[in-house]
Amino acid sequence: MEHPEASLCSAEGVNKFKETALFQDYHGMPEFREAVAKFMGKVRGGRVKFDPDRIVMSGGATGAHEMVAFCLADPGEAFLVPTPYYPGFDRDLRWRTGVELVPVVCESSNNFKITRAALEAAYEKAKEANLRVKGLLITNPSNPLGTILDRDTLKGIVKFINEKNIHLIGDEIYAATVFMEPEFVSISEIIEEVECNRDLIHIVYSLSKDMGFPGFRVGIVYSYNDAVVSCARKMSSFGLVSSQTQHLIATMLSDDDFVDSFIVESKEQLFKRHEYFTLSLSEVGIGSLKSNAGLFIWMDLRKLLKEKTLDAEMDLWRVIINEVKLNVSPGSSFHCDEPGWFRVCFANMDDNTMEVALLRITTFMHKHNEAMVPRKLCRRASLKLSLSRRRDDFMSQNMMSPHSPIPQSPLVRART
Amino acid sequence: MEHPEASLCSAEGVNKFKETALFQDYHGMPEFREAVAKFMGKVRGGRVKFDPDRIVMSGGATGAHEMVAFCLADPGEAFLVPTPYYPGFDRDLRWRTGVELVPVVCESSNNFKITRAALEAAYEKAKEANLRVKGLLITNPSNPLGTILDRDTLKGIVKFINEKNIHLIGDEIYAATVFMEPEFVSISEIIEEVECNRDLIHIVYSLSKDMGFPGFRVGIVYSYNDAVVSCARKMSSFGLVSSQTQHLIATMLSDDDFVDSFIVESKEQLFKRHEYFTLSLSEVGIGSLKSNAGLFIWMDLRKLLKEKTLDAEMDLWRVIINEVKLNVSPGSSFHCDEPGWFRVCFANMDDNTMEVALLRITTFMHKHNEAMVPRKLCRRASLKLSLSRRRDDFMSQNMMSPHSPIPQSPLVRART
Repeated sequence: MEHPEASLCSAEGVNKFKETALFQDYHGMPEFREAVAKFMGKVRGGRVKFDPDRIVMSGGATGAHEMVAFCLADPGEAFLVPTPYYPGFDRDLRWRTGVELVPVVCESSNNFKITRAALEAAYEKAKEANLRVKGLLITNPSNPLGTILDRDTLKGIVKFINEKNIHLIGDEIYAATVFMEPEFVSISEIIEEVECNRDLIHIVYSLSKDMGFPGFRVGIVYSYNDAVVSCARKMSSFGLVSSQTQHLIATMLSDDDFVDSFIVESKEQLFKRHEYFTLSLSEVGIGSLKSNAGLFIWMDLRKLLKEKTLDAEMDLWRVIINEVKLNVSPGSSFHCDEPGWFRVCFANMDDNTMEVALLRITTFMHKHNEAMVPRKLCRRASLKLSLSRRRDDFMSQNMMSPHSPIPQSPLVRART
Repeated sequence: MEHPEASLCSAEGVNKFKETALFQDYHGMPEFREAVAKFMGKVRGGRVKFDPDRIVMSGGATGAHEMVAFCLADPGEAFLVPTPYYPGFDRDLRWRTGVELVPVVCESSNNFKITRAALEAAYEKAKEANLRVKGLLITNPSNPLGTILDRDTLKGIVKFINEKNIHLIGDEIYAATVFMEPEFVSISEIIEEVECNRDLIHIVYSLSKDMGFPGFRVGIVYSYNDAVVSCARKMSSFGLVSSQTQHLIATMLSDDDFVDSFIVESKEQLFKRHEYFTLSLSEVGIGSLKSNAGLFIWMDLRKLLKEKTLDAEMDLWRVIINEVKLNVSPGSSFHCDEPGWFRVCFANMDDNTMEVALLRITTFMHKHNEAMVPRKLCRRASLKLSLSRRRDDFMSQNMMSPHSPIPQSPLVRART
């Protein structure tokens, strides 16, 4: 409302209507690219600068991932992807490109860390399958884990891809969601600290999560490789950002005060919600992976499985969807080998909905674990009472966006 | 300005900001699809109705064509395309899909008509090259010809694709630019008149030309085939229309008075400009293909060629770009076999620019054809004077959009 010039239908903005509607340079509006580059720097704590001329537009991160895959690999070639990973990758990177994904198996025993041994094992497995590995795709912060990669792990990853001479795609679409220490470290910082061939480094970014604008379809490929920038730019014709939206975003992100306070407030709200949610779960005996980012938690229901199999995980998932009436995503849909993990989005609902969800979980735990729950149930009830008094703290008008409309849940998969 | 609710930054529209920013159903907003379906009907004279549930979004017609190619063909399979055709097809349909295009050679001797003989010849040629033909792509109205396909030709085309059991893609992105009799006939009308397998029929549409909004990236695939609708809808994730733009377009196209008068006024302006431009050219001895649609004319400079070769056409093009200082597109860039044709956009410039262009052409013709030009030059001068008095007639605030930023011209090709 404070920026009527951001609109094309206002007295202040209508003189830009024609120019904007006709705009069709696939490089994007200079003010849009500059604003996005600046925002990317801010989100990374101002420790790195991004060059607007390396900003390539795409139709959301969805289009960005496909674009990078088209740029870097031929059909039948492969990317390594640490598990658990966003199931949309199976569509985005593979579907139309013919590219293969080879899982890098990470395990709960070391908090799903990406180790050199796991990377080497995946690389060898690909070789045995006669797949040429063209790159490694990491998601940092991680979807579904809600964790970030530490500096040493990132350095090890850069060393690995340099030694193998393969590309590194850093999906950093949750960069601004790191709501708690330790601080987020971007791959763009690491390559300034260690020696590496920058032609191998590419970042996928988006405003869908960090700004909560999935509807606006603002995806970005930021490559340090000139040839990739040039090729991706030509491909961007298939998924350009609407010039109307470029205009809006350019205006919005140019307001430093707004951006600075938005980033802070968004993190604060995520922190509170995350704290409340994990606390509430732990009070009914549900643990989760320690996390400090993202819009979800990686819930540990291993002890509720009838047996340690993915079939048992699906059985439990069916109970949760049909009886508990909650749509959480089973770990298997993220290619997690170890049964019993579930991703829960905690950000994309209002406080009332969250309360309902938590009460359903409590009731569920009560039913399944009668021996330990009665005491907890009382505590939940009192929590609910205390929440209604603390409504202002938790109530948010700026709820983060949900994940993309992707078949993460087997329920959705069955429908599409 | 009369619809502040179309904006998300106005007092009237800001309450829709959150909902719109978060919107991510790849079916598209119901009001958007309804408005587009209604507009498509209006543009076709209200003679056919379009089902909003068959409207699939894509990133402009560029993304729509790629999407259709991905849906209908595997790598190495082919589409027939009558020449001359929009050179962007070589990118959109082929680049990432691996699909081949086989030209259906049309000739000036019968005004570039698409004949059964030409279709059969192309089909046979593909077969000889061991290419499996999956469909025929027609552009109606034609870019670059500015002509429309008559009812009998369209019926013949539908008969042909039915007999061969191949798909028909009707690119109708210039449907609203038919500014003169005969009336536009859409493939959607033909399939109601003749028997055909509707599963083979698909329409590509866009608001880039008919509304002059290339920057907004509104592309549409409208298929009569349920499987294609379903598959394309999933692919649309790679190039969805920004929800902000869906909201604007839905509001805009719901205003019947505006739409009705826009369609009429746009045609009127195109008609005047086309008439003035072709008349001015003919006065200096330049003919063009008789046309009644589109934003361009197909200029006949065959007699200016030093010899009847495509090399000579390129020589002439270099003279036009370097000496005459006009950027027109040689026929060879549209896969036209016959040298000497050039596409001239007449719509995307203001009246002053048009005057400069016409004067340059006049001077050029004078220089190249001294024997016949002096008389014409005088006439041009008087035309210019009369124009300045008729400025209001030709001056337009609603100039149509230019073509996409595609390497139609060898100059642009060399740079990208």
